[in-house]
Amino acid sequence: TSYAAEERRGEAAGGPEGKGRRPPAAEGGKWLERMRRTFEEPTSSVAAQVLATVSILFVIVSMVVLCASTLPEWRAPGDRSGEYTAESVREPSGIIEAICIGWFTAECIVRFIVSKNKCEFVRRPLNIIDLLAITPYYISVLMTVFTGENSQLQRAGVTLRVLRMMRIFWVIKLARHFIGLQTLGLTLKRCYREMVMLLVFICVAMAIFSALSQLLENGLDLGTKNKDYASIPAACWWVIISMTTVGYGDMCPITVPGRILGGICVVSGIVLLALPITFIYHSFVQCYHELKFRSARYSRSLSAEFLN
Amino acid sequence: TSYAAEERRGEAAGGPEGKGRRPPAAEGGKWLERMRRTFEEPTSSVAAQVLATVSILFVIVSMVVLCASTLPEWRAPGDRSGEYTAESVREPSGIIEAICIGWFTAECIVRFIVSKNKCEFVRRPLNIIDLLAITPYYISVLMTVFTGENSQLQRAGVTLRVLRMMRIFWVIKLARHFIGLQTLGLTLKRCYREMVMLLVFICVAMAIFSALSQLLENGLDLGTKNKDYASIPAACWWVIISMTTVGYGDMCPITVPGRILGGICVVSGIVLLALPITFIYHSFVQCYHELKFRSARYSRSLSAEFLN
Amino acid sequence: TSYAAEERRGEAAGGPEGKGRRPPAAEGGKWLERMRRTFEEPTSSVAAQVLATVSILFVIVSMVVLCASTLPEWRAPGDRSGEYTAESVREPSGIIEAICIGWFTAECIVRFIVSKNKCEFVRRPLNIIDLLAITPYYISVLMTVFTGENSQLQRAGVTLRVLRMMRIFWVIKLARHFIGLQTLGLTLKRCYREMVMLLVFICVAMAIFSALSQLLENGLDLGTKNKDYASIPAACWWVIISMTTVGYGDMCPITVPGRILGGICVVSGIVLLALPITFIYHSFVQCYHELKFRSARYSRSLSAEFLN
Amino acid sequence: TSYAAEERRGEAAGGPEGKGRRPPAAEGGKWLERMRRTFEEPTSSVAAQVLATVSILFVIVSMVVLCASTLPEWRAPGDRSGEYTAESVREPSGIIEAICIGWFTAECIVRFIVSKNKCEFVRRPLNIIDLLAITPYYISVLMTVFTGENSQLQRAGVTLRVLRMMRIFWVIKLARHFIGLQTLGLTLKRCYREMVMLLVFICVAMAIFSALSQLLENGLDLGTKNKDYASIPAACWWVIISMTTVGYGDMCPITVPGRILGGICVVSGIVLLALPITFIYHSFVQCYHELKFRSARYSRSLSAEFLN
Repeated sequence: TSYAAEERRGEAAGGPEGKGRRPPAAEGGKWLERMRRTFEEPTSSVAAQVLATVSILFVIVSMVVLCASTLPEWRAPGDRSGEYTAESVREPSGIIEAICIGWFTAECIVRFIVSKNKCEFVRRPLNIIDLLAITPYYISVLMTVFTGENSQLQRAGVTLRVLRMMRIFWVIKLARHFIGLQTLGLTLKRCYREMVMLLVFICVAMAIFSALSQLLENGLDLGTKNKDYASIPAACWWVIISMTTVGYGDMCPITVPGRILGGICVVSGIVLLALPITFIYHSFVQCYHELKFRSARYSRSLSAEFLN
Repeated sequence: TSYAAEERRGEAAGGPEGKGRRPPAAEGGKWLERMRRTFEEPTSSVAAQVLATVSILFVIVSMVVLCASTLPEWRAPGDRSGEYTAESVREPSGIIEAICIGWFTAECIVRFIVSKNKCEFVRRPLNIIDLLAITPYYISVLMTVFTGENSQLQRAGVTLRVLRMMRIFWVIKLARHFIGLQTLGLTLKRCYREMVMLLVFICVAMAIFSALSQLLENGLDLGTKNKDYASIPAACWWVIISMTTVGYGDMCPITVPGRILGGICVVSGIVLLALPITFIYHSFVQCYHELKFRSARYSRSLSAEFLN
Repeated sequence: TSYAAEERRGEAAGGPEGKGRRPPAAEGGKWLERMRRTFEEPTSSVAAQVLATVSILFVIVSMVVLCASTLPEWRAPGDRSGEYTAESVREPSGIIEAICIGWFTAECIVRFIVSKNKCEFVRRPLNIIDLLAITPYYISVLMTVFTGENSQLQRAGVTLRVLRMMRIFWVIKLARHFIGLQTLGLTLKRCYREMVMLLVFICVAMAIFSALSQLLENGLDLGTKNKDYASIPAACWWVIISMTTVGYGDMCPITVPGRILGGICVVSGIVLLALPITFIYHSFVQCYHELKFRSARYSRSLSAEFLN
Repeated sequence: TSYAAEERRGEAAGGPEGKGRRPPAAEGGKWLERMRRTFEEPTSSVAAQVLATVSILFVIVSMVVLCASTLPEWRAPGDRSGEYTAESVREPSGIIEAICIGWFTAECIVRFIVSKNKCEFVRRPLNIIDLLAITPYYISVLMTVFTGENSQLQRAGVTLRVLRMMRIFWVIKLARHFIGLQTLGLTLKRCYREMVMLLVFICVAMAIFSALSQLLENGLDLGTKNKDYASIPAACWWVIISMTTVGYGDMCPITVPGRILGGICVVSGIVLLALPITFIYHSFVQCYHELKFRSARYSRSLSAEFLN
């Protein structure tokens, strides 16, 4: 329970503070407090709701632009490599991206200014994600400025492309507005033991089944030598795809012992994966009810405050 | 609970009305009431059961005809495009369809006439579905009549084909007769939050994994450039097919980082999809027991009435 | 509960009869009773256990022979069609099959003779299955005898092959010896409502999604006409394979609207199938505990009897 | 409960012994006891934790070397067959393997020497696995020494490769350090009934569906004879891959009756596999909580002892 208490402090600093703890605010403090609420609590006022909606829209627009910019029809004939050059800022998609990043930066700065506890603010996970999502853009702009026309170099082009793709993490900003994503985050944080268990299960099963399948399909020389299972790492791909019951069909066993092993691998994969996932699920349900209860209590405390 | 009460009124208007609310019916009213029951409550009398069976049969026959009409062997050699022309009404399948639609229209009209509360009647979801399922037929007939021989035009042909396919929604009329489908409808109505959560999870995961897989498989130029992952929207198809563990195998990663991402994508897809679905499942169980209890109570109240 | 009582009588007639109901048995009756127990209750004595083991072995041997007889290496060069001719009885596999069928027939007859209530005996599902599994062999032998060398005719060959394959149902005889299979049988019997629900869900979803996918992939003429979706019945195969997340990859959508529909189809398939299956699962758990409790109580009553 | 008690003795002999049972240890005995704890209880002291970490690292290193040694780039151009020759010991991978096996052997011997009850020690499953994992290395070394240059013989090469691959089971040594793997082992031990049930379900379903699919796809001669379903064993592969919803797509039915059977097979596979797995899951949850509670109680008893 002390862990949960720590979490409550860390995760939902904008949560229900006791009335007694709130200092008698001056006029400026009151305005700051109102700003803080507008930015941090989407349900607190109409302005906050508008702000939240605008923020969500900016995220969606930037995602759509990012997706569209990779379409072959969208890219100019001479710019098929998807590189982020200085010119691309002047393109429509570049302009929209610049507006989005401007909004996100402004939002982030205002949120920092109006926050009560600066030290706590920078430690909150959602704010760290915000920072990580915004920074690559500025780095890539700086790189383009400094390298100039040398951005045609293969190395820089790849780096820019990686930095560009990192803006996909803007989508995690939605977690501020959807209780489902917050629940997911809290669940992952609490279930690290179960995640490790899931990882260990998968790794152990992958090691055993990939080695055996490589041996049976390729090592034993039973008539046909299946080239797909040439090495254990290659067989690992088959194991993970089979254990999760995906089964792309790009590799599949052709010898009789390999097929028997395949059947065992698939069935044990279903069993192995189901076991830790159910732990995660139970934690998820609990987190969901906790967050819902907390937000309901918070809304109630807010409305009670407005009435007084 | 007030939501559930509203639902009870909306969904099952033919449900258990208190005896006190029922006005002392005149002879005509009594007849109307009997008719209403025959149409709305399949278990109320033998006639109602016959009516329900005939209605189910008509739905099944119309579905079979619709399916069969797309078979290449069924279509005439000169009419391979599946267009709905004026002549096709005179074909056997056209005649059966006309009979079915006639029955559905008659049923709908009688049901409207005998309903106690016309205003409430038109707002009930099953009746709206009935209307939406019947209308396209008449629109397509009208279009065929007005455009005449011009129906050979590509544009009109596509519209007619779309309207024709909309009669597949007749199958939802079965919901009137199967408690399972009603439960499903009620569950979807109540679980809109969880459906949104599921949608948000899928969208966020799709955004992140498709961008990363596009980058790793196509953007980094690691020896082989996988053409299948040319754009993010194309990678989205791979992500949804992998996360749901379908795995058609039309696209699959070939680079080592792409395969590692693929494994993470599949495992997190299994976890992500399982979480909100269990909420939906719990709601489904509750809805099922509620509907069963309600129908049992209703039957009891009916038999009590018949005895008095 | 009356249903369950009826079941108890029907399913487990060899179950715990009250001591008072048992008539004072004569010497012959005692012997019959001992025989009956040896055949019906595998745990009652050493002889019964030996009998059960032999019976299981015969089933397994006959299954192995049936499987092996379809292997190309096993079949004689001149007899590649797998037909059941008069000569094939003289082959090793034919002789083993004849011995197995002889054992099953003898077992069935003895069981009938020693049964207390002949009328009830012929109505028990496991005995009906026994009869259905044995009969085809004799019919095929009779057909071979009467048609003689005409068994080379295509028509008779197919019938014989069908009759021959029906001996795969001998495997259901194992249900007599495995509590898991009995539980499964009892679950299927009790869950017919949920099975119907599952069937209705699958049929409705198949109707809607196959019609829409046929329209989007083939009917709209969006550039590429996907030949795989030529008709609704063909699309049905894709829908069932996608909804159950199997995804062979022999058919898959290639247009953008078709792929969006595919994603919706897969996700709703996962949700739809999970819902009724959980009902079945709960019933299964209950049946399992019931059968285990019943068999435990029965063993106890038996040992109590032996002590007195 | 007596079964659980036996288990407690067998599985966790290093578990909580009552204080009264512990004999007043001499100086040497005290040192042995401390050694025993260092090796058997990873959380008892800093030295024990270091030892555990080193042991895990050795397992991981040996696994990585085993995987890497199968990569085509890693193997020398003249040694593509992956055979374990006398020379290969002098290669880097051979040296690392020798060091690992040396460590494991030393660990195993020390653990045996310091164990209190030698007889019980050799019966504990984790120690048996250790022995089975170490032995093949020495056998292969002996074989190489005795056969000398004759190891180029096909027969010996295959045997050596099999022995070499058996070191993949070193990975099970991780179970000593991960509670998840211990839980899995305990669950498998307790759920042998449910595992048998799962196996029987799969076998019965495979027998029935493979025979029927072979008949429908290949035996009936309905126009196209699907060569993939030539024999029942071949069809078995399709059945297991379909029932577990993997669906590689290397075989799939093409006739209409075969596809209908395929749909039934897939749906019944989902139902059949889900039923026993949930039993296993419940047992897993129970085992997990038991092991966690036991280890917590043990830590507490240890710290209480250290305080006194």
